Amino acid sequence: MSSFGRVFRVTTYGESHCKSVGCIVDGVPPNLSLNEDDIQPQLTRRRPGQSKLSTPRNEKDRVEIQSGTEFGKTLGTPIGMVVRNEDQRPKDYSETDVYPRPSHADYTYLSKYHTKASSGGGRSSARETIGRVAAGAIAEKFLKQINNVEIVAFVSGVGEVSIDRSTKNESFINLLNTITRDQVDDCGPIRCPVADKAEEMTKLVENAKHSQDSVGGVVTCVIRNSPIGLGEPCFDKLEALLAHAMLSIPATKGFEIGSGFEGATMNGSEHNDPFVVKDKETGRLGTSTNFSGGIQGGISNGENIYFSVAFKPPATISQAQETTSYEGEEGTLKARGRHDPNVVPRAIPIVEAMAALVIADAFLIQKSRESTFDLVN
Amino acid sequence: MSSFGRVFRVTTYGESHCKSVGCIVDGVPPNLSLNEDDIQPQLTRRRPGQSKLSTPRNEKDRVEIQSGTEFGKTLGTPIGMVVRNEDQRPKDYSETDVYPRPSHADYTYLSKYHTKASSGGGRSSARETIGRVAAGAIAEKFLKQINNVEIVAFVSGVGEVSIDRSTKNESFINLLNTITRDQVDDCGPIRCPVADKAEEMTKLVENAKHSQDSVGGVVTCVIRNSPIGLGEPCFDKLEALLAHAMLSIPATKGFEIGSGFEGATMNGSEHNDPFVVKDKETGRLGTSTNFSGGIQGGISNGENIYFSVAFKPPATISQAQETTSYEGEEGTLKARGRHDPNVVPRAIPIVEAMAALVIADAFLIQKSRESTFDLVN
Amino acid sequence: MSSFGRVFRVTTYGESHCKSVGCIVDGVPPNLSLNEDDIQPQLTRRRPGQSKLSTPRNEKDRVEIQSGTEFGKTLGTPIGMVVRNEDQRPKDYSETDVYPRPSHADYTYLSKYHTKASSGGGRSSARETIGRVAAGAIAEKFLKQINNVEIVAFVSGVGEVSIDRSTKNESFINLLNTITRDQVDDCGPIRCPVADKAEEMTKLVENAKHSQDSVGGVVTCVIRNSPIGLGEPCFDKLEALLAHAMLSIPATKGFEIGSGFEGATMNGSEHNDPFVVKDKETGRLGTSTNFSGGIQGGISNGENIYFSVAFKPPATISQAQETTSYEGEEGTLKARGRHDPNVVPRAIPIVEAMAALVIADAFLIQKSRESTFDLVN
Amino acid sequence: MSSFGRVFRVTTYGESHCKSVGCIVDGVPPNLSLNEDDIQPQLTRRRPGQSKLSTPRNEKDRVEIQSGTEFGKTLGTPIGMVVRNEDQRPKDYSETDVYPRPSHADYTYLSKYHTKASSGGGRSSARETIGRVAAGAIAEKFLKQINNVEIVAFVSGVGEVSIDRSTKNESFINLLNTITRDQVDDCGPIRCPVADKAEEMTKLVENAKHSQDSVGGVVTCVIRNSPIGLGEPCFDKLEALLAHAMLSIPATKGFEIGSGFEGATMNGSEHNDPFVVKDKETGRLGTSTNFSGGIQGGISNGENIYFSVAFKPPATISQAQETTSYEGEEGTLKARGRHDPNVVPRAIPIVEAMAALVIADAFLIQKSRESTFDLVN
Repeated sequence: MSSFGRVFRVTTYGESHCKSVGCIVDGVPPNLSLNEDDIQPQLTRRRPGQSKLSTPRNEKDRVEIQSGTEFGKTLGTPIGMVVRNEDQRPKDYSETDVYPRPSHADYTYLSKYHTKASSGGGRSSARETIGRVAAGAIAEKFLKQINNVEIVAFVSGVGEVSIDRSTKNESFINLLNTITRDQVDDCGPIRCPVADKAEEMTKLVENAKHSQDSVGGVVTCVIRNSPIGLGEPCFDKLEALLAHAMLSIPATKGFEIGSGFEGATMNGSEHNDPFVVKDKETGRLGTSTNFSGGIQGGISNGENIYFSVAFKPPATISQAQETTSYEGEEGTLKARGRHDPNVVPRAIPIVEAMAALVIADAFLIQKSRESTFDLVN
Repeated sequence: MSSFGRVFRVTTYGESHCKSVGCIVDGVPPNLSLNEDDIQPQLTRRRPGQSKLSTPRNEKDRVEIQSGTEFGKTLGTPIGMVVRNEDQRPKDYSETDVYPRPSHADYTYLSKYHTKASSGGGRSSARETIGRVAAGAIAEKFLKQINNVEIVAFVSGVGEVSIDRSTKNESFINLLNTITRDQVDDCGPIRCPVADKAEEMTKLVENAKHSQDSVGGVVTCVIRNSPIGLGEPCFDKLEALLAHAMLSIPATKGFEIGSGFEGATMNGSEHNDPFVVKDKETGRLGTSTNFSGGIQGGISNGENIYFSVAFKPPATISQAQETTSYEGEEGTLKARGRHDPNVVPRAIPIVEAMAALVIADAFLIQKSRESTFDLVN
Repeated sequence: MSSFGRVFRVTTYGESHCKSVGCIVDGVPPNLSLNEDDIQPQLTRRRPGQSKLSTPRNEKDRVEIQSGTEFGKTLGTPIGMVVRNEDQRPKDYSETDVYPRPSHADYTYLSKYHTKASSGGGRSSARETIGRVAAGAIAEKFLKQINNVEIVAFVSGVGEVSIDRSTKNESFINLLNTITRDQVDDCGPIRCPVADKAEEMTKLVENAKHSQDSVGGVVTCVIRNSPIGLGEPCFDKLEALLAHAMLSIPATKGFEIGSGFEGATMNGSEHNDPFVVKDKETGRLGTSTNFSGGIQGGISNGENIYFSVAFKPPATISQAQETTSYEGEEGTLKARGRHDPNVVPRAIPIVEAMAALVIADAFLIQKSRESTFDLVN
Repeated sequence: MSSFGRVFRVTTYGESHCKSVGCIVDGVPPNLSLNEDDIQPQLTRRRPGQSKLSTPRNEKDRVEIQSGTEFGKTLGTPIGMVVRNEDQRPKDYSETDVYPRPSHADYTYLSKYHTKASSGGGRSSARETIGRVAAGAIAEKFLKQINNVEIVAFVSGVGEVSIDRSTKNESFINLLNTITRDQVDDCGPIRCPVADKAEEMTKLVENAKHSQDSVGGVVTCVIRNSPIGLGEPCFDKLEALLAHAMLSIPATKGFEIGSGFEGATMNGSEHNDPFVVKDKETGRLGTSTNFSGGIQGGISNGENIYFSVAFKPPATISQAQETTSYEGEEGTLKARGRHDPNVVPRAIPIVEAMAALVIADAFLIQKSRESTFDLVN
């Protein structure tokens, strides 16, 4: 479905070649300061055409709030948001009338809906993510205020080049503790904050572009200052909601949290996170290591929540591909148009948005429970 | 929450030391042949005490159908199922009154609920999964009938030992094409179908047990004969639902589908799955490679759906651990009781159950859509 | 929340003085012919300013489809719809800064949200219903095609004047069997199809207007050709969903289906609907009377579904009212602006829309079940 | 579906002739004192066989809590509850193999599920309501603690005999202000607290029983001390949720809240509820009349919430009925077995339970919102 969340809930609409894309965000708390300036920056970060690494289409992507605010404050009513589609060029993909594009959604959309949109699998288009980013920006604004929650994503892998994402790697853990969005953006269009890696990655992307190919990558995200107690056992554990959110982003193939797949290779005596007193005044406990990734038993424990998301190489490449037509004829497909050789830098604000949506919803649900602590006995 | 699914929906209850655990399965189609014998085998596979590799507790775990069937057929009404807790021993964990167990859910449950159950984080207990397995068995029975869907999970990694799970590895792809549950169980209690790997894994587990430690692992699962067209864009892509389902299983740290994290290192020209005619009579297309993992644009394409799930080493180990008490005093925790040094073999039927629940629900939702194809124009 | 439905689901946004109102309709089957002309007529029927009986505001209420269709056919993706707010005049209600308007939502919105919108309780505004009507028009188009479903609502009561709505009244039952929307609209702006009653009602409304007062009314709705088998026991019985839908319309105070409150006064021997063969060829059964209102055990039985909805008199009246200010000072409130003395004629398309949304959703869910009838055994 | 509620959510299972009926209640706040004694009284009130007015079946209906509590306190985890079916006698209804019982659910269940349970429409059985009553008792316990919420239902009509339920009737309003469950039960098995009316109603039921017939009735319910601010615009207005809840109870035909259908006959100047200061210390406003029924704009305003529910006469009567068989043959059906001539006294605890479930859920959702009031700006 096109809705996500239970109390703080976004519903999106729109595909590549329609009038507009947008969303309705329901359950936003009232009296929150909010206007377009709070939302536009992440939409702009999501835009293609920001550098030579991405596609030259010049989308404007200006968000317009339709409802739910008055005089710069939220009313508690649903917030409608619209972003017009300006640069549509629906003829660009006409070749797809003959061939379903390999590893794209043309064939499965046709199977599922018995209809062909002019852009093939319409809702699998990257433009669908605009509504998510707009909604996520509201969630972020809310989380910032309630607990100074900080959510920062960055590129940790492109092709074979990657940062050592092991929880045992102290410099990686330090990076998670300190990285800011400004640092991510300042490090260049590849959005990898480790300079030498960023350089290698950039070369890889340029090579891919040059050879009319594409290349995959990994995005890592950290959530700092998450309130304790978020996540609903048993099916809506916090990591389950995050996994759902991340794997709903187009082109994702994997998710790992905390120690992740490396954790599966470890012993318990090494992997267990010992408790220590984190705040001497309140006696609040924390853990001295963080293989758990900030979540234990499906519930946030106050440590950094961090996870990584694998993105496959973009399916649309300019070089010729041997494949088979809808009619069963073998042949060669050569895509036209403008294509991103690598999407992970643009995925950064999308990952951040989905993370914010998960945390905001889990926070409101837990707040409901906490409100009863003094009431029952 | 304790519910999963939209049309085919399970709701579970129960923790370690209560009267029973169980579930209600809503939305089961009517007239399906069903009795306890369809459900018990997977519950028995889930039981501990089946070999020297797992805990000696002798749970009986007999399922009793309470409602929703008559004369061995489903009525279409909700199916209540109950499994009594027989071996409770609630005193065994008394040490936890002083120390929150590292990387267990004691501390986060206390933070979230402001209450301590006798077993610490009650719903994070492995017994919670009984309801899932019982429900999943019904989903499997249904899927078997409607399209001969086959779901087989197996252990692909324990500690540092693992099968090469690369999509580029032909023998791995062959394994996915042919593996059966009987083969998985016949290969020994470790449930890894590659003999030499199984032997190494078994030794690792025995070593962990001997050193009062535990060790993590990876479960791989394949879904064969999935109907085409399952999964709901944009937030409920099939891989997103599978990721949600898998990360809701206790002790999981990662999920990857198809090429997974390896896919992030590849180029598009290699990763794209070319279309080929799979069925000459109907002209049905398929793909010659399967880096996509049977899903494109969030929708099943008829190829094998396969994914892997990372499990951390069990948090409860017998050796002493330096940690800090609820009161903030540093000290040593030495757990008593009986502990699994490795849970992945027992996780096999749980992974299969959650996969079946996802597919059954997605199938029914898509069938609703398909029912309109001849009705509208 | 601002969403309604499980598979065919609408989410709305917008209040009186924001940029636009609108909705997202998710789960619309693909390949349905659809453009603005299918939607506009019901929006126009909902508009005020159509006659001397209602408010002179000249809203245009032109709907613009944003997404989900291409070349006049639905894609199966969510349909975004926007209707701009043109005539806003936000100063008109400034008096409400001092007094919460009696029986309006000013006070409860302030209590709930701790915020005052310029129109008082923003989402309780009649403009909120535009999104419902637009979504309902799509549901209706779909239902028309799949089973020639006909949904017709009409005014059956204004103040003390009312049609005899007893199931025992043969002419009422005949009316339900034959009434069309054209007949409802042709009978004059009061939309009561019984001429002498319409005349009396019209006078009542004019009197109310003249005395700066308002008057309530009753809307009756019939759904003909409903497919059999709709409604989900036990909590989502079809009448429960209809009751939910109708009581969510602003200003409603009651709902009755079939024999309704009169049924509570009857004996079973009179109230029971005997079965008869309705279709000699198929042997399909129906009932010779219809006290059940087309639903038995929460499930549609193929007979006419009919129900009535009570609307209170509009809370906003022009005459002075003794009341108390937010600050606790007794005083007199005299509302300015333009007010409908009676809303039931304008409620007609809203009732029809909500009925269509309920039936379309129930239909798709039941179709999912029916799709399995040939698959399981 | 078999689930109701969003945060405080019940899921039920069970029909007449299965092993047990029961439910899972999810989202119950932790640390609430709770044991079977809190739940059994309402189940006992629901039992048939309590007087000569109802059926002689001697159901025991003992509830057993399965999970979610320890040492008499809730854990915050789901509460499983089971009530065994003891007196089954599945042969009693064999006549229904030939004839679908008029106005019962046999025919629609067969149409919907393509299956015949031994009791005809299994989930339309009154036994289905046991799970609701058990869940409602927990909701009530919670509401009692958090705001001393009082929910009392009583019989206000049987056949043609009824209490004057007009909001203009001062003695009715006084009754709503003061009535207690003890008074309702003390007034005799008919559960109408107005003595002379109770006597007439009792005679009516006895007459119906004597003539092998049945008779309908009306239940009125008042909720006192409801917190202010409950109900979620726009689709989940509090009255919409109550209407949904009530119309989901078997045999209901109507719902009205506050002035109800009488309100539709009134003028606004009479119907509007003027504000007055209700609490001089806090300045809290209330209304001097209560035509609104405690809800304005879909949100509770702190006044009494009161509503009435119409129940049709029970469909199962002992006298012979002319009808038509499944095969299309006209004939005479004469039901055997034991039948309630009137169900409204037994419906009292069911109406109370559903009301409690609605209020508890709405309360928790609003608490989530309120928790943000001090956090955002």
